[in-house]
Amino acid sequence: MSVRPQQPTWVDGAAGGPYDADNLPYAVFATGDGAARVGVRVGDLVLDVAPLAAAGEVPHGEVFGAPSLTPLMALGRGAWSALRGWLVGLLTDPRMRRSVEPWLLPVDDVQLVLPFPVADYVDFYSSLHHATLVGQILRPGADPLPRQWRRLPIGYHGRSGAVVVSGAPVHRPRGLRPERTGASAGPDADVLTYAATQQLDFEAELAFAVGVPTEPASRVSTAAFGDHVFGVQLLNDWSARDIQRYESAPLGPFLGKAFATTVAAWVTPLDALAAAWVPLPGQDPAPAAHLRVDDPAGLDIDIEIAVNGETLARVPYASTYWAPAQMLAHLTSGGAPLRTGDVFASGTVSGPEPDRRGCLLELTLGGTRPLTLPDGSARGWLVDGDEVVLTASAPGSLGGRLALGETRGRIDAVRAAQ
Amino acid sequence: MSVRPQQPTWVDGAAGGPYDADNLPYAVFATGDGAARVGVRVGDLVLDVAPLAAAGEVPHGEVFGAPSLTPLMALGRGAWSALRGWLVGLLTDPRMRRSVEPWLLPVDDVQLVLPFPVADYVDFYSSLHHATLVGQILRPGADPLPRQWRRLPIGYHGRSGAVVVSGAPVHRPRGLRPERTGASAGPDADVLTYAATQQLDFEAELAFAVGVPTEPASRVSTAAFGDHVFGVQLLNDWSARDIQRYESAPLGPFLGKAFATTVAAWVTPLDALAAAWVPLPGQDPAPAAHLRVDDPAGLDIDIEIAVNGETLARVPYASTYWAPAQMLAHLTSGGAPLRTGDVFASGTVSGPEPDRRGCLLELTLGGTRPLTLPDGSARGWLVDGDEVVLTASAPGSLGGRLALGETRGRIDAVRAAQ
Repeated sequence: MSVRPQQPTWVDGAAGGPYDADNLPYAVFATGDGAARVGVRVGDLVLDVAPLAAAGEVPHGEVFGAPSLTPLMALGRGAWSALRGWLVGLLTDPRMRRSVEPWLLPVDDVQLVLPFPVADYVDFYSSLHHATLVGQILRPGADPLPRQWRRLPIGYHGRSGAVVVSGAPVHRPRGLRPERTGASAGPDADVLTYAATQQLDFEAELAFAVGVPTEPASRVSTAAFGDHVFGVQLLNDWSARDIQRYESAPLGPFLGKAFATTVAAWVTPLDALAAAWVPLPGQDPAPAAHLRVDDPAGLDIDIEIAVNGETLARVPYASTYWAPAQMLAHLTSGGAPLRTGDVFASGTVSGPEPDRRGCLLELTLGGTRPLTLPDGSARGWLVDGDEVVLTASAPGSLGGRLALGETRGRIDAVRAAQ
Repeated sequence: MSVRPQQPTWVDGAAGGPYDADNLPYAVFATGDGAARVGVRVGDLVLDVAPLAAAGEVPHGEVFGAPSLTPLMALGRGAWSALRGWLVGLLTDPRMRRSVEPWLLPVDDVQLVLPFPVADYVDFYSSLHHATLVGQILRPGADPLPRQWRRLPIGYHGRSGAVVVSGAPVHRPRGLRPERTGASAGPDADVLTYAATQQLDFEAELAFAVGVPTEPASRVSTAAFGDHVFGVQLLNDWSARDIQRYESAPLGPFLGKAFATTVAAWVTPLDALAAAWVPLPGQDPAPAAHLRVDDPAGLDIDIEIAVNGETLARVPYASTYWAPAQMLAHLTSGGAPLRTGDVFASGTVSGPEPDRRGCLLELTLGGTRPLTLPDGSARGWLVDGDEVVLTASAPGSLGGRLALGETRGRIDAVRAAQ
């Protein structure tokens, strides 16, 4: 079903690279002189698709003129594949060069905007290594895994209005938190203060963008994952750990995660990841019937976390316990409706090794063992001015590795208006 | 600042009733022959406002022709008051009767739709009586109140895509839950099943609809509440207690509350509640500076819960611990952005008396003491076919009590597609 190019692109400098014809992610871009519209990335260029689609009278081609990916995402799997097939043809058939080349713009010359308004945003907790270590740090002495953790993918709703596109500044939040913010200072801390977080963290995650909605009170089987999910994005779920820890029991995280969530500007279509599916690491006990998947149900995506230009950690999404199709099946298993633009994310991606962890909470063991950056400075938590960049790669269908679009965010000081 | 009519309406049968000129809630309605547009309720009639606004060249009058309240809600406090003043004039000045009367339609002849698409939906936990009793039922032997409960209004994000308008059917959800569903069966129950909830509940709540968004990383002071909040609605936060209890630790409620949330079709503007403000019942300890309010900061709104036409309980919103302005100040205290269409709700409204409780979890003590309905049947939890209706009243500025629009929902069986 998936569209795999038979040959590399003819675009100069792009063949064999991370944005060859087997990738072709979508974004929404604006230039100085035009309205926002859909672009496709190839090499270091953005294809301005709308004029080509109009000239070729491509079915559904009008979606490329929209100021968001929403109309494209709503089309469904058949049209997604057909449009991707047309794009692969444009960018791999050398006879198309003359008509296509005028519509290629340097990516550095365009402004990328939030690719679609997020409807509902759900964050899961699907990495066994993450959940285990977080439990050990936050609830020492107790069983680190919540008892239902292996029975269902635990998740919660986040704030979709706080989702911003890669590059947007992230203001350090204030909040009610204990004056002492050591790892053990929980909700029973005595002295409260309303002040800037002292435990600002990132979380490296993979997000899944829903295209096709559901009928009321219906559910999506694990097998129907690809009928609803349009693509994937890197996501940084910025977290203020002191605020989060104080507020969370019993209704879960709230303001500690509601100030900003950064998503990539580029959405990688599921079709581009056809060569990236791998078996899950194994599930014990076997999940309930409606959560069972046929392997390969995991994705071989490696995420790299850089702070101020230096790599801090590499984390393997393939080590994640719960599969994307299981998260979606669970999410809809009670009839929760899906809308075009819903996003659900993996939660922090962490591998089993101590240095392959997707957040500072884990990498510094709750801030107790600060990391030393190459410039010699120490980080228990993020400081103002820190820039966190997530990048990722996955096997492409042309034999190399393709790139997922980055998420980038720099910490600004608390705003005066706060 | 608020607009108070000096005299009752001239509309036949409406003067002195629950929908007199001091009320005038907004909804979006459709008739067989026209597009959805904004209506204003007076008596048992709906005023079709758009043609009158166009004829009168009323500033901002175009918002009444929209298929949602969103454009009206985005205008802000000055325009809200000006438009309300114009409407009060139309409906109280007898000289207007001839030109206005042709635009009054029987409310039973129109179809009411979701008044605006909900952006982010937050549910609070603001009733001390509710939180205390729920803690006693769910965590017997422990301190019933979470330690931070009196320091901040606890809240969490719900699923905005699951918000439906009054009258929409509510399908009983399935979910992963313990086979035993007694009050004490928590996440450590042994045998799991994916099946229809056996503990379906309602929650009587008051919801606040945000009109004016915030700038990035800014917050709303308690004093600025009325600059952002457009109006209030009754809300029923349907809950599947067995699913909720099993899934909730540590990230909070998820699918147990994500299948349906019913809001009223009618939005009561804050201006209509000018006579309803009352002092809070008292807060100990005093809240942090950014959460302090000047009384009167509570609302004297009585909510009545009826099942199958018989009153089950009456609950006093005035007994609620945390004020609406404190919930909004807390929500935005970390820079979480507000958008037009955000909704935040009180959580279950319960008074101190055992029979003045806003959900079955409390009224039946976790299902252990079923209520007997007037028809002789017992209810530990809702059964298929049950219809739950919330109604409410508040002091109006003409001396009587005005009505808030009802929420109505009937439980349908699990859908076959589930």
